[in-house]
Amino acid sequence: MLTVDITGALRFIDAGAFEKKMHLACDAAESLLERRCPGKDMTGWISLPQTDARELETIGDAAKRIQDENDCMVVIGIGGSYLGAKAVIEALPGEASFPVIFAGQNISPEYHDRLIGSLDGKRYALCVISKSGTTTEPAIAFRLLRSMLYEKLGRETAARHIIAITDPKAGALRRMAAENGFTSFTIPPDVGGRFSVLSPVGLVPCAVAGVPIAGMMEAAGLAMDEYSSPDGGNEALRYALLRNMLQNKGTRIEVLSTFHPELAMFCEWWKQLAGESEGKSGKGLFPASTVMTTDLHSLGQYLQEGPRDILETFLVAASPRTDITIPSDEADLDNLNYIAGKTLSKVNRMAFEGTISAHSSGDLPVIRIEIPSVAPGAVGSLIVFFEIAVAVSAILMGVNPFDQPGVEEYKTRMFKLLGKPGKR
Amino acid sequence: MLTVDITGALRFIDAGAFEKKMHLACDAAESLLERRCPGKDMTGWISLPQTDARELETIGDAAKRIQDENDCMVVIGIGGSYLGAKAVIEALPGEASFPVIFAGQNISPEYHDRLIGSLDGKRYALCVISKSGTTTEPAIAFRLLRSMLYEKLGRETAARHIIAITDPKAGALRRMAAENGFTSFTIPPDVGGRFSVLSPVGLVPCAVAGVPIAGMMEAAGLAMDEYSSPDGGNEALRYALLRNMLQNKGTRIEVLSTFHPELAMFCEWWKQLAGESEGKSGKGLFPASTVMTTDLHSLGQYLQEGPRDILETFLVAASPRTDITIPSDEADLDNLNYIAGKTLSKVNRMAFEGTISAHSSGDLPVIRIEIPSVAPGAVGSLIVFFEIAVAVSAILMGVNPFDQPGVEEYKTRMFKLLGKPGKR
Repeated sequence: MLTVDITGALRFIDAGAFEKKMHLACDAAESLLERRCPGKDMTGWISLPQTDARELETIGDAAKRIQDENDCMVVIGIGGSYLGAKAVIEALPGEASFPVIFAGQNISPEYHDRLIGSLDGKRYALCVISKSGTTTEPAIAFRLLRSMLYEKLGRETAARHIIAITDPKAGALRRMAAENGFTSFTIPPDVGGRFSVLSPVGLVPCAVAGVPIAGMMEAAGLAMDEYSSPDGGNEALRYALLRNMLQNKGTRIEVLSTFHPELAMFCEWWKQLAGESEGKSGKGLFPASTVMTTDLHSLGQYLQEGPRDILETFLVAASPRTDITIPSDEADLDNLNYIAGKTLSKVNRMAFEGTISAHSSGDLPVIRIEIPSVAPGAVGSLIVFFEIAVAVSAILMGVNPFDQPGVEEYKTRMFKLLGKPGKR
Repeated sequence: MLTVDITGALRFIDAGAFEKKMHLACDAAESLLERRCPGKDMTGWISLPQTDARELETIGDAAKRIQDENDCMVVIGIGGSYLGAKAVIEALPGEASFPVIFAGQNISPEYHDRLIGSLDGKRYALCVISKSGTTTEPAIAFRLLRSMLYEKLGRETAARHIIAITDPKAGALRRMAAENGFTSFTIPPDVGGRFSVLSPVGLVPCAVAGVPIAGMMEAAGLAMDEYSSPDGGNEALRYALLRNMLQNKGTRIEVLSTFHPELAMFCEWWKQLAGESEGKSGKGLFPASTVMTTDLHSLGQYLQEGPRDILETFLVAASPRTDITIPSDEADLDNLNYIAGKTLSKVNRMAFEGTISAHSSGDLPVIRIEIPSVAPGAVGSLIVFFEIAVAVSAILMGVNPFDQPGVEEYKTRMFKLLGKPGKR
């Protein structure tokens, strides 16, 4: 599904050394597959694309019921319980036509006040996603929204409109689901948040939105076979090794640049995946993203002529899913008649080719990742490609790809400030 | 209006040397005010807050007519002709209640197809913003949308619903406006895109959306007096010098972190301002942003434990413009009763205090910029603060803050690929 071209970055390192080191990336992939890498207890995501058809059907049935009985669904989650689903849903506006709104990914009163206002007069379901059920942001939003729903429908009827996605056994949300009779799905205990989009965490919201999850998962399965394979031609491993070697040579930032605005949230998902997996022990490329051509008129100058310690990875689709032809204009004051009759996708494509060539000639290492179109299968493949590449990259760096010890620090201090019992 | 606290970053440099060098920042400000700095021909933005009441009234009248006769307005522009207006409008959802949509900030067929679909059955006005009228992205969108409007209303009536903001005399859009009788406003020739938000470029879309532009401009005027003043206590100059000295010591990235989702686009505006002004001759801090607490569960790990060459500038408001109280819950399975009765804004504030303390203790230089609330005046002050700081910072770096020579590179190559006459 994916075409990956790393030649525009390979020229910045010793190509001979690169090929010689490929065995390290293969070893890393092997240690991942055999679950003996750092963080081995959290490698359950490798098996997610094998989810059986029956579980996908169960998710589909729950999704259908939510769609039938509601005007929209509010998904409550933060971090990995938010970014993956939002990334897939926004990537596929053609498929994802049932309104899914997100809450609990911040503590903003303005945000939640507007969100609550937008629910006025609507029939809405809640889908709360949290391993523990006590993460502050989603727990607050769930309290607010379920108390509103209880008030509106009564506890018993309300429970029919609540889905909980949580730990199979432990935790507050599992207990709440059992006591109140919420429909529930399971977050596998060996899958961490940022690797959970192909579990119910991502699949349930996507299915409710209207994304054909079976097709996405089938492509993800094929991608997993391809990109986890410990061989020297594996594009995910080559990309992982390349960014590792660039980093060792002084590259500080990786910018994921897409020419498709609908992939903006996908880039945000990737930023968490890369930043949280690698950003520890003083290491890791800083993950940033741009949406082109918008940001050519913002960060374009910097990418063209700023410091040369940036790797730019372009993410493009070969074909659009819809298109528009540029009309002719008699007066032609805007000088656009030379492209009249051409499509927007053609012009966008030439903007991409012009940009990758311009940045490359400005001595920026560039990588080109191409999908046939922004469709469910391609999105599933991209998810797996980046998951494997980031995990292998972190293993090559010598860090645990699957922990995030630094995230606790702000929480500890916030709890103290809020006077949480036992936290003084 | 602003409280700026740089002590959390000052400890990373020699405080004595900092005070000794303040005269350089004062000199830079003076050269800016006296219009003898690099790029002196593009310093007209310094006078923008002095826009007389009569011009603001003219803008207000045009805005009122647009609102009365339409259901929404499409603003067509890219870069500085887009980011400023969108930043202000999204920051002020309470004021900006008339729907303003953006087009021509990309060449995506998917984006424009959905946008055109959303206009179906609506009465819409167009506001096209371009100095030349031939910038590819907005020129294409304007062609598409005006041909639709001509078809719907006829040329003459359609012209009543089109506003052009462009060069006072030259260029394709000025000629088009004259020939077709569009209402028009002027982009001052000595003001560049990223410094134009307080000119009609930003003011017209803001006024149509419902932003009280007079209040914003009044605060901007006071801020301009304060932050352009060449004295050693000026917070904008101190911030500029500090980031300059950090950069000279190896800082590579500045992250603007806000705890208010409505300021997300404001951070995007800042990214263009900083990146395009400084990112040249191999220099400049890489500008990135986060929206908290969302991104504490994404880039938080990296900021806490990744490489220590990042400056984090926090942007927070002291008071919310609306609030929500956390309800009590009898079962308390989510363990939140310890904050029941507290407001979201209080918890969000403690999350901010916890975060700045955590990142600071993780040896990240931190700066705190605080506004009373996310209101029109505060936004106007912030705009001026960052404009001055970035301009002075670039002057200190020895680059022209007001050009963007690198932006032409992708255009030249794209034009060749598209076969533009004279570009082979």
